Amino acid sequence: MGKKVAGVLGATGSVGQRFILLLADHPDFELKVLGASSRSAGKKYVDAVNWKQTDLLPEFAKSIIVSECTADAFKDCDVVFSGLDADYAGPIEKEFKEHGLAVISNAKNYRREEDVPLIVPITNPEHLDLVNANLVKAKQEGKPRPGFIICISNCSTAGLVAPLKPLVEKFGPISLLTTTTLQAISGAGFSPGVPSIDILDNIIPYIGGEEDKIEWETKKILGALSQDKSQINLLSDDEIKVSAQCNRVAVSDGHTECISLKFKNQPAPSVEEVKQCLRDYVCDAAKLGCHSAPKQTIHVLEQNDRPQPRLDRTRDNGYGVSVGRVREDPVLDFKMVVLSHNTVIGAAGAGILIAEILLAKNII
Amino acid sequence: MGKKVAGVLGATGSVGQRFILLLADHPDFELKVLGASSRSAGKKYVDAVNWKQTDLLPEFAKSIIVSECTADAFKDCDVVFSGLDADYAGPIEKEFKEHGLAVISNAKNYRREEDVPLIVPITNPEHLDLVNANLVKAKQEGKPRPGFIICISNCSTAGLVAPLKPLVEKFGPISLLTTTTLQAISGAGFSPGVPSIDILDNIIPYIGGEEDKIEWETKKILGALSQDKSQINLLSDDEIKVSAQCNRVAVSDGHTECISLKFKNQPAPSVEEVKQCLRDYVCDAAKLGCHSAPKQTIHVLEQNDRPQPRLDRTRDNGYGVSVGRVREDPVLDFKMVVLSHNTVIGAAGAGILIAEILLAKNII
Amino acid sequence: MGKKVAGVLGATGSVGQRFILLLADHPDFELKVLGASSRSAGKKYVDAVNWKQTDLLPEFAKSIIVSECTADAFKDCDVVFSGLDADYAGPIEKEFKEHGLAVISNAKNYRREEDVPLIVPITNPEHLDLVNANLVKAKQEGKPRPGFIICISNCSTAGLVAPLKPLVEKFGPISLLTTTTLQAISGAGFSPGVPSIDILDNIIPYIGGEEDKIEWETKKILGALSQDKSQINLLSDDEIKVSAQCNRVAVSDGHTECISLKFKNQPAPSVEEVKQCLRDYVCDAAKLGCHSAPKQTIHVLEQNDRPQPRLDRTRDNGYGVSVGRVREDPVLDFKMVVLSHNTVIGAAGAGILIAEILLAKNII
Amino acid sequence: MGKKVAGVLGATGSVGQRFILLLADHPDFELKVLGASSRSAGKKYVDAVNWKQTDLLPEFAKSIIVSECTADAFKDCDVVFSGLDADYAGPIEKEFKEHGLAVISNAKNYRREEDVPLIVPITNPEHLDLVNANLVKAKQEGKPRPGFIICISNCSTAGLVAPLKPLVEKFGPISLLTTTTLQAISGAGFSPGVPSIDILDNIIPYIGGEEDKIEWETKKILGALSQDKSQINLLSDDEIKVSAQCNRVAVSDGHTECISLKFKNQPAPSVEEVKQCLRDYVCDAAKLGCHSAPKQTIHVLEQNDRPQPRLDRTRDNGYGVSVGRVREDPVLDFKMVVLSHNTVIGAAGAGILIAEILLAKNII
Repeated sequence: MGKKVAGVLGATGSVGQRFILLLADHPDFELKVLGASSRSAGKKYVDAVNWKQTDLLPEFAKSIIVSECTADAFKDCDVVFSGLDADYAGPIEKEFKEHGLAVISNAKNYRREEDVPLIVPITNPEHLDLVNANLVKAKQEGKPRPGFIICISNCSTAGLVAPLKPLVEKFGPISLLTTTTLQAISGAGFSPGVPSIDILDNIIPYIGGEEDKIEWETKKILGALSQDKSQINLLSDDEIKVSAQCNRVAVSDGHTECISLKFKNQPAPSVEEVKQCLRDYVCDAAKLGCHSAPKQTIHVLEQNDRPQPRLDRTRDNGYGVSVGRVREDPVLDFKMVVLSHNTVIGAAGAGILIAEILLAKNII
Repeated sequence: MGKKVAGVLGATGSVGQRFILLLADHPDFELKVLGASSRSAGKKYVDAVNWKQTDLLPEFAKSIIVSECTADAFKDCDVVFSGLDADYAGPIEKEFKEHGLAVISNAKNYRREEDVPLIVPITNPEHLDLVNANLVKAKQEGKPRPGFIICISNCSTAGLVAPLKPLVEKFGPISLLTTTTLQAISGAGFSPGVPSIDILDNIIPYIGGEEDKIEWETKKILGALSQDKSQINLLSDDEIKVSAQCNRVAVSDGHTECISLKFKNQPAPSVEEVKQCLRDYVCDAAKLGCHSAPKQTIHVLEQNDRPQPRLDRTRDNGYGVSVGRVREDPVLDFKMVVLSHNTVIGAAGAGILIAEILLAKNII
Repeated sequence: MGKKVAGVLGATGSVGQRFILLLADHPDFELKVLGASSRSAGKKYVDAVNWKQTDLLPEFAKSIIVSECTADAFKDCDVVFSGLDADYAGPIEKEFKEHGLAVISNAKNYRREEDVPLIVPITNPEHLDLVNANLVKAKQEGKPRPGFIICISNCSTAGLVAPLKPLVEKFGPISLLTTTTLQAISGAGFSPGVPSIDILDNIIPYIGGEEDKIEWETKKILGALSQDKSQINLLSDDEIKVSAQCNRVAVSDGHTECISLKFKNQPAPSVEEVKQCLRDYVCDAAKLGCHSAPKQTIHVLEQNDRPQPRLDRTRDNGYGVSVGRVREDPVLDFKMVVLSHNTVIGAAGAGILIAEILLAKNII
Repeated sequence: MGKKVAGVLGATGSVGQRFILLLADHPDFELKVLGASSRSAGKKYVDAVNWKQTDLLPEFAKSIIVSECTADAFKDCDVVFSGLDADYAGPIEKEFKEHGLAVISNAKNYRREEDVPLIVPITNPEHLDLVNANLVKAKQEGKPRPGFIICISNCSTAGLVAPLKPLVEKFGPISLLTTTTLQAISGAGFSPGVPSIDILDNIIPYIGGEEDKIEWETKKILGALSQDKSQINLLSDDEIKVSAQCNRVAVSDGHTECISLKFKNQPAPSVEEVKQCLRDYVCDAAKLGCHSAPKQTIHVLEQNDRPQPRLDRTRDNGYGVSVGRVREDPVLDFKMVVLSHNTVIGAAGAGILIAEILLAKNII
């Protein structure tokens, strides 16, 4: 078996549990190390975790002894997936990187570093060339193989940018962009996450930090790698203005976003051209033959009441994004509804697909 | 007792039931006639209705014998509230008007007639002067007192325009306006309304006709009565562009709207000026001392996670509108969250307050 | 004004907030002291509390400076309502009692003390005679007026015993009793209470300690005060067997219970006799003219799909209990569905009504 | 390919859609005929159906031309699955039987016929011998192969009897049985099914006919085939008393039941013996190697807050039943919580597994 060795940081948490599910029976990776807090370290995983997934805890993971989150414990890992809470991720992920480890993190801590790729794997895998360039350079300079951190984007950013990328590639820059999100509760984790009294027969029209993340991350993900591949250049406020309004709603999984956009180049394309562009898009991960890559990256739905979270969130196992109601917008050029699976393409699943791309590109 | 005599059309339906609740113990009106379909006519109301309100069916209404929806049956009414379904409202309301009756209707059928006021009572009661002008003219010409129809606006339009009116009055025209709605299920009635399988753990990103209603009705409600008071002049597409995206969510009562707007006059006011303007607004109904008028028309909430439907929808018995998260918008000038009670200020309650205004203005 | 002075312990919590709402504009009590943890003490209440009620924080309470939970701070109170968490209630309530204060507590800590009445105010107010007897005795012995603790029953017990009491009074003892509860999330408080991910599209078939509370408390509440009024004698396991199965469901307020029961005396009464007995029942609090006493103690509903929490929980402001679907049971004698408002008759509201009864009986 | 030819009656309905999903890529059956009302007949299935499943409409089914529900249209089918509404199922299924067709029906119409097996496939497949005996007899008598109807049990009955069967086999008859159900909305279909206003923040403590179905069907399913295999003998009221209380709750899929039972033979087994018996049970369908048979028929869960619908309903693809909280009952012998997937083992899925058993037994 030539499987790569994988580890998971924050293994008992919500994101960590999903990493484990996605790595069970994975053709490319073998999960060997599970790291969690001192409270859990030393215990069998089955005894340390409060498993809250709809799929059963995989047999292979039950008896793994939970490690402390130290680089030493993960030293044999070809790739480490981090589901650590932002409160803890900072120093741990940094230590891992300094010890030459490859970290793919769901935490927000390093997303804004200019030399850290912020990746939606169906959207901007080309930003991973920054990592590759670093590896090549170190090799050329005879230095030891450097570690690196790759950040998974915020969940609601992922759903937003996925349909934008093909549009920008075909029709040129988007100058104005608004999104109003209706976000699932699973995005808030479960310890305790959103209290039920706040979500039953209710809407919370605020998610701390979320609007700022969407507005900022979009500019990085749609930005370009610098000529020397050493950093990601953000789109400027002159190039694109982004406005987000975020709501938490009574949905378990799947973020719905009502978006509007205006192209820089006018006249704008037709509704049918926009839809055709989305339908035709094949993400690089699919071209590379990655195991988890969606067969259809963007599903364009024609029924007027779709996409709906309950019915459409699991398209392509949650790696495909659904777009519906593409129509002209009296204020900007177009409006449409985008649905993405927040715990798959918006979190743990994105990490797995990033690793598959790294493998396909021989970066790990 | 100098109470005005009131009747309700469509008395067994969702809106009709709420009219009855609001008219129980009302200081100005005495509900005497209940009209419904032939299936119900002739029965005691208590036997005809499938009462589905959280308040008990008022005693006084139980033994009223349900009438057919004919002008003759309502001929003694000073005001008739119509909760009729759009499928039936057209000819019935027309007949009532032709027989000199005063009809306040929740149906959409006549909203787009230029000589029919489309009223949000806390927002554009001045449009009722059209009706008064007609009455005066008929009197001067020695003609019999004419009947009239006044339309209640669509529920999601009501919440949207309520905070716009004071802003336009103070800062001048709004040129661009977007709203993404998260609408309660009670807006869809209950026979059967929204199926539960469509709303549990789900969002329906579409409500038939709703977006068009919001985009059109806003232009009428914010428009002006013509010089001769014979018609309402809509704002033109050049004056204001409106874009709506409508969603049905798992909330019982209370429509939440995430809105953005741009003023024609630049520079725009500050966030604090906008909030102060909203706080200071006193609707005419309050000035007139109407029984149901909100003490505070617009509640400006400062907590960053408000308004929330469960916590804020019953402010001023549902006649007050709550606004939160007023902040600058990177794309337009401002964004904010608006919450209004869809079955009160957005439907039956609006009808009652309109009638109270008519009474205060001696129109009925 | 001859209002009694009231205080609230645990004033920032879920139960404490409801005590405050119920005491606003109360004709008998004036709320003057609010106690909370050291974290809150010294602050204005409005600054200390995260107010999460659908009614607004009453004006009078906003500027009250929060006290520490010491007997000294409450020394002028004629009655103290405790919404303290069980983790803190033990020593604090004991200290208050020892300092001669009258404590009505929602905490479970002293419910099982044989000299502490466990009260559902519409059901067993006669157990309060224990307190009175103590006061009389102390007076006769020339001792200082003793303090006392009265416990409010568990919320799901309250709904269960309410319809049993009139049945037992009329038809004799119940020998077998089962209840399966469907309990609202508000019963779990909100810090954080039930996580939303556990309750959306889900049932939790377990509430820690709840089944045992129901099974035990029922035997105390239906038990009798001893001859010398010094203790409550529990019903024995031979007299009544009680079995509870408890579930948490996606309901905000209102506990539904599907109960079955068998009478000791056979033949059992008819269904109609059972319903008539429930309809005829007038609780002592109503006879005493207490302000919050329900006009109708037990509402017997005839529609086959009632009671329903959303439609029926607020009968008599939550002090009335609704019973529906009374029918013969193939296994025991009768089955029926009982709905009670868990935060009113099952918690804070019960405390207020108990205080009103104490006042009516000149105990405070 | 030796696959048997299958047809589906009521193909556009809720149950019909699930039959289609379960028959896609089935190793034993090839779905060739889809029958629906005249309104749909003649259209391609994709154009006739309002597909509301979370899985996509299988490609193979899209272009099938919908047939009328006539025996002639289904004459080549080895087995016909009926998802017809009870309003239509009666004469259609009878005609099919009379034309020699094998019908497995989810409708209630023939469940109470003494020569029609009422089957929960993991529980009483031995009742299918009635059908076989008929076929053998016809063959011996030189008569044409007779058609037959087999009924799928009511959904809530299925979950109830599944754990009872192994208990009865091991510990003898159950004399008293109570169940309080918390039933999912999917059991009510979706045209329109349960209105959302009835289920949001609510419980409906009534499902028409359901309690009677549970109480009656249990006696048939736990009953025995007569000696001559010509009919099913119901358990008498003396042998077992069954009492059901049914509630509709805000759960999409998965019926939870809180059950209690008393054995005829005393002393009753221990809790551990009961759990072991359930764990050890292997249903006949599993022994026969049926494709859809659960690997583990009854899952005994040890965590005190399980089973939960969202987490446990898909065990063994919905063909396994989960049991938790097995404990002594103060009133009867034991109480426990049972969870079953109402649209799988309680409806369409049961039909498929019944057909697999028929195939394994050479009945089709």
